[in-house]
Amino acid sequence: MRFTNDLTSKEVCLVGLGLMGGSLALALRPHVARLVAVDVNLETCRQAVAGGIVDQATPELAGGVATAGLVVLATPVRTILRLLAELPALRPDGCLVLDLGSTKEAVGQAMAALPATFAAIGGHPMCGRETAGLASATAGLYQGQTFVLCRNSRTNEVIEEVALALVAAISARPLFLPAGEHDNLVATSSHLPYLVATLLMQRAAAAGERDERLWPVSASGFRDTSRLAGSDPQVMLDILLTNRAAVLAALQGYQEELAAVLEWLAAGDEAALAAWLAAAQAHYQEYRSNFRRELADQEHSS
Amino acid sequence: MRFTNDLTSKEVCLVGLGLMGGSLALALRPHVARLVAVDVNLETCRQAVAGGIVDQATPELAGGVATAGLVVLATPVRTILRLLAELPALRPDGCLVLDLGSTKEAVGQAMAALPATFAAIGGHPMCGRETAGLASATAGLYQGQTFVLCRNSRTNEVIEEVALALVAAISARPLFLPAGEHDNLVATSSHLPYLVATLLMQRAAAAGERDERLWPVSASGFRDTSRLAGSDPQVMLDILLTNRAAVLAALQGYQEELAAVLEWLAAGDEAALAAWLAAAQAHYQEYRSNFRRELADQEHSS
Repeated sequence: MRFTNDLTSKEVCLVGLGLMGGSLALALRPHVARLVAVDVNLETCRQAVAGGIVDQATPELAGGVATAGLVVLATPVRTILRLLAELPALRPDGCLVLDLGSTKEAVGQAMAALPATFAAIGGHPMCGRETAGLASATAGLYQGQTFVLCRNSRTNEVIEEVALALVAAISARPLFLPAGEHDNLVATSSHLPYLVATLLMQRAAAAGERDERLWPVSASGFRDTSRLAGSDPQVMLDILLTNRAAVLAALQGYQEELAAVLEWLAAGDEAALAAWLAAAQAHYQEYRSNFRRELADQEHSS
Repeated sequence: MRFTNDLTSKEVCLVGLGLMGGSLALALRPHVARLVAVDVNLETCRQAVAGGIVDQATPELAGGVATAGLVVLATPVRTILRLLAELPALRPDGCLVLDLGSTKEAVGQAMAALPATFAAIGGHPMCGRETAGLASATAGLYQGQTFVLCRNSRTNEVIEEVALALVAAISARPLFLPAGEHDNLVATSSHLPYLVATLLMQRAAAAGERDERLWPVSASGFRDTSRLAGSDPQVMLDILLTNRAAVLAALQGYQEELAAVLEWLAAGDEAALAAWLAAAQAHYQEYRSNFRRELADQEHSS
C-alpha cells in the first residue's frame, strides 16, 4: 500500500477557501504537516496566508496538488466533479482524495472513475452557515457535528482511516452512509428546508414591496424560518441539480401536504387543523429532546 | 375622565400566565403598584406567587379583575374574545383594557362592543418563543421588540397613554397600525412562517419514520427552519382561525410560487432557478442589513 494512513505527517491540499474550506483550514492546520490551499480568488489566497490560516495558497490547481498526500475538495458540487476529472492528469502518481460536497451520489461516481493510483472517499459535514466566504469561516464550525462518509469503488482502508483521523481532528462525529441513502435523507433534512426558507423570503419580499411595515412586524420566528435563504446560491444550485430526483420527491410531498392544509383552512375544519398542529408540535418536541446533545449550548429565544 | 393615565399607581390584572403573560409579569411588576394574575391552572397560580412574579394569583376571573385599573388579556385569541364578552358583567364600573393577542381585527371588534365605561386598545408584541408556559417566561422577552398597538372605537387618550407607558416600561418599541393592516402583514411575516415550519416538521417526521438516520443528518438549518413547529397548537389554531382570509391568501401565494419552483426543477431550468435563488439571497441580505439593530446580539451560527 503506497499511501500511509496517518494524517499528521501529511501535506494536505485544500481546494476552495469558502465557508466550509476556510473553517476546515482553521480547525485542521494544527493536525497536519503542511496545509496548502487552492482558491480561484487571489485576494482570498492572500488573506489566508496573511492570516496564518494556511502555509501556502495559490489559484493554480496544478501547483497546489503537486505534492499533496491528501487533497480535500471544498467547492460547490459541480466544481468538485470537474476537479475530480482534472486530477488524474495533474497527479499521474495518484493521491488520497476527500470531498465536502453536499450531495454524494454524483461525487461517488466521479471518484469511482479515478485511476487505480487514487484512493477516494466522499464526505459531507452536516453543518454550515447562511453566510458565505472565508470571512464567515470559524474554527468551531465542525465541532460536535455529524460528518457523513460515503464509500465508493475507489475507497480503501487507507483513505477511510485518514478521513476518520481528519473527522476526529476537527472534533466531528463520523457516520458512514451509502451515497444514495445520504442523498435521499438530505433532500428532506437539508435541501427541502432551504427551498422552504427561500420561498418564504420571496413571498415576504413581495409583501414587503407592497407595504414596507412588514419588516418591523417581522420577529425572530420569521428571521429563523427564512435564514437559509441567505445561503450561497451557486452552492445551492449545484446541490439541487445533482440531487434533482430526491429533491423533487421531497418538494412534491411538501406540496401535497400543503394542499391538504389549505383545504382545511378554507373549509374552517378546526378538528383537522388542531390534530395536525398538535402532531407537528409533538414531533418537534421529540426531535428536540432526542437530539438535544448537539443543541444544548445553542439555545436561542425566538 | 374617570381613568388616570399613569401606570405606576395602578393595580394591574394580567389574565393568562403563559409565555407571554408570564414574561410580561416579570418585566412589568417593578413598574406598577400591584400585579394580580388570573390563570385557569391552580399550580401555575401557586408557582407565580411563590416565585414572587405577581402579588396575587387566582383562577377566578371575577376576583382577579374586581379592583384592577388595567386588565391585560394574555390568552389565546379566542379566549380573549370570550373574556371581553364577560368583562362588562364583572366590572359594571368599567376599566382600562389591553390585550396581547396575535390577531387584532376580531379583538378590535370585541373591544368596540364593550360599554362606554371601558377604554380599550389592542396590542401585539412581536416576539415569542417556540416553548409555551410560565416555565419558558423570561423578563427580557419584550426588550427592543416591536409592540404593535391597534386603536378601535373604545380607544381614548388615556388607554393609549397607559399602553405606551407599559410598552416603555418593558423596553419595547410601539408601532400603531390599523387592525386589518396588522392582520394582513402578520399573515405573511408570522403565520406563514409557522405553517411553513410545521409542514417541514411533518414531512421530516414522515421521512424519519421510514429511515431514522434522518435525524443525525439534520443540522442547524433544519433546526431553525422547523423551530416554529414547536409553538403552542392552541395559540396557533386561534390565530389561524381568526385571520383565516389573510392566512389563506398568503398560503395560496406560497403555493403558487412553490409550483413554479417545482416546474423549474422538473425541467432542469438552471437559468430560472439560478435567478430565483440569487434574488432570494439578495432579499435576505437586505432584510438582515436593514433590520440588524434587533439582531446584533442574537447572531447564531447554522
